Amino acid sequence: MAADTLTVALDANGADAGPAEVARGAAMAAAEGVRVVLFGPADALPAAPGVEVVDAPVSIAKAADPARAVRRTPEASIVQAVRAVADGRADALVSGGSTGAALAAGLFAIKRAPGIHRPALAVLVPVPGRPFLLLDCGANVAVRPEHLVQFAHMGAAFMEVVMGIERPRVALLANGEEPGKGTEDVVAAHAALAASGGLDFAGNVEGFAVGRGAADVIVTDGFTGNVALKVMEGTAGALLGAVREAAMTSPRAKLGGLLLRPALRGLRDSIDPEEQGGAFLLGLRRLAVVPHGSFGARGIARAVALAARGVRADVAGRTHDRLEAAGALRRAAEPSAAAATVPDP
Amino acid sequence: MAADTLTVALDANGADAGPAEVARGAAMAAAEGVRVVLFGPADALPAAPGVEVVDAPVSIAKAADPARAVRRTPEASIVQAVRAVADGRADALVSGGSTGAALAAGLFAIKRAPGIHRPALAVLVPVPGRPFLLLDCGANVAVRPEHLVQFAHMGAAFMEVVMGIERPRVALLANGEEPGKGTEDVVAAHAALAASGGLDFAGNVEGFAVGRGAADVIVTDGFTGNVALKVMEGTAGALLGAVREAAMTSPRAKLGGLLLRPALRGLRDSIDPEEQGGAFLLGLRRLAVVPHGSFGARGIARAVALAARGVRADVAGRTHDRLEAAGALRRAAEPSAAAATVPDP
Repeated sequence: MAADTLTVALDANGADAGPAEVARGAAMAAAEGVRVVLFGPADALPAAPGVEVVDAPVSIAKAADPARAVRRTPEASIVQAVRAVADGRADALVSGGSTGAALAAGLFAIKRAPGIHRPALAVLVPVPGRPFLLLDCGANVAVRPEHLVQFAHMGAAFMEVVMGIERPRVALLANGEEPGKGTEDVVAAHAALAASGGLDFAGNVEGFAVGRGAADVIVTDGFTGNVALKVMEGTAGALLGAVREAAMTSPRAKLGGLLLRPALRGLRDSIDPEEQGGAFLLGLRRLAVVPHGSFGARGIARAVALAARGVRADVAGRTHDRLEAAGALRRAAEPSAAAATVPDP
Repeated sequence: MAADTLTVALDANGADAGPAEVARGAAMAAAEGVRVVLFGPADALPAAPGVEVVDAPVSIAKAADPARAVRRTPEASIVQAVRAVADGRADALVSGGSTGAALAAGLFAIKRAPGIHRPALAVLVPVPGRPFLLLDCGANVAVRPEHLVQFAHMGAAFMEVVMGIERPRVALLANGEEPGKGTEDVVAAHAALAASGGLDFAGNVEGFAVGRGAADVIVTDGFTGNVALKVMEGTAGALLGAVREAAMTSPRAKLGGLLLRPALRGLRDSIDPEEQGGAFLLGLRRLAVVPHGSFGARGIARAVALAARGVRADVAGRTHDRLEAAGALRRAAEPSAAAATVPDP
């Protein structure tokens, strides 16, 4: 496929707002010049220029065990979308919103890129200022030091290529800033990253940095990353809710809240997750983007645009080059080569 | 020592506001009926009724390697304070503010309670509503399932005895709510907790719950807990800072911020960490409380009062009873019995 006729496979199922909203996002993305193949219930998906609809009404977005559902439901929309990417009929995958199903399907059907130990789920975290990339956010609950090293390079390549950040600062999440802090694996990863070439390694950062965005890429295992991301979301939600409630406690506070609202709207927009396109599954042969289930058409369109940008800029190739230059590619003789060993997310 | 002449050893060094502020806190606590032995630079510590001052000007509060500093500096105020507790001259320890030094000294000099694998650092996390207890927040970066099980009972005993919560709900922090989510150790701990008697086990909670306070006790390893706590602090700080900044963007927003301020002050008070007294080192023969370095006299006094309440209500004995009833005590033959194996925090 030539770069100018880039195709994204988009699963219409899984978004909270329903398949029609995903189709609206597809139409918006297609209007920007990306070809979209949309997998979902055809009767709910209006036609649009540049959007090809494939009837795939079966959804496994709510499956309790996504990995099992992926294996057992070849007709499911996400499985068909992933197959289109695996077969080369599409260049990248965008899911409608179910992280579990998209992650399972992506790991199951799209092969790992050469030399990659483990794919990682990377999230562009919106903080006031510019977003940073947190990975792994849940693809691997347990990792070895060499996995963390690869995540660092994968994240740096993404921020460089897709987000246009020159020499992204990469940090390792730990329980203290000193190089000796953290689990044995984190300490070993720190030493390897400090010795690794081609990386602007900022050392360890503490949890505070996740709230503030103190680096461009923050690397951790999928268990800690998942917890950190959700703590952040939970805290922000609880706090903004409490501010809203405080603004209802008296007529004076109500008036204050009313006057402040336009300014707070600006803040809300600047930390809007929808603007970031969701999560990115890095380390596969092709890029997969997993928008949040709550996204509307705008977020879906943004996810498709980011996927297209990643393909055009060859994020997979650039990642491979970085890893090769740093001597961090998995050698063929090393274990964990079989796709079946990828754990359930 | 009779319950009515309870003594708390208090290290005056380590607080950001200086030893004199800690002495003010000591005086406030003494006025409430607790005897305080204050270790610090005597010339900076005004006398007060019920407060005995021991001249110990050497501080290791800022030591880069607290565990090493504790071993090498027997004259340090925190080491002297901990020795007073270890020798039975005081019933509980309160540090002036350096978590690292207090943790290292507590683990070093106060023995573990019988049957405890590992002491844990527990933090009362202020959320709108009532605080919940998060542990471990950094005493053990790597734990085994049986440690997590003990943390659950230690936390439940604390919330029952010290905070007066009947049948506290205990949850396990994971990357998903299903019992199979998490690392191998988390999955094993989940199974053990579900089978454990005498515990109101709420199952797994995700990071969202840390922001919201969805249980009375949330159990995790010291690496994840430390990260989660700091992500929460960092997010809350960044967000409140951004709200303040938003309130400066226009005359209209400024007026709104001014009108809203009293209501927000109520919110700020309700999530004020100082009100909670800081962190608690659980699982030692005696209770140790570690206020945050930023605390003023009020926070120090609150920490002393909580330490006294824990001693009066026999939190150590109640913890032991719970663990015994649940069959979760460490047997004498099991490893990790030597105090020297306690890792550097």
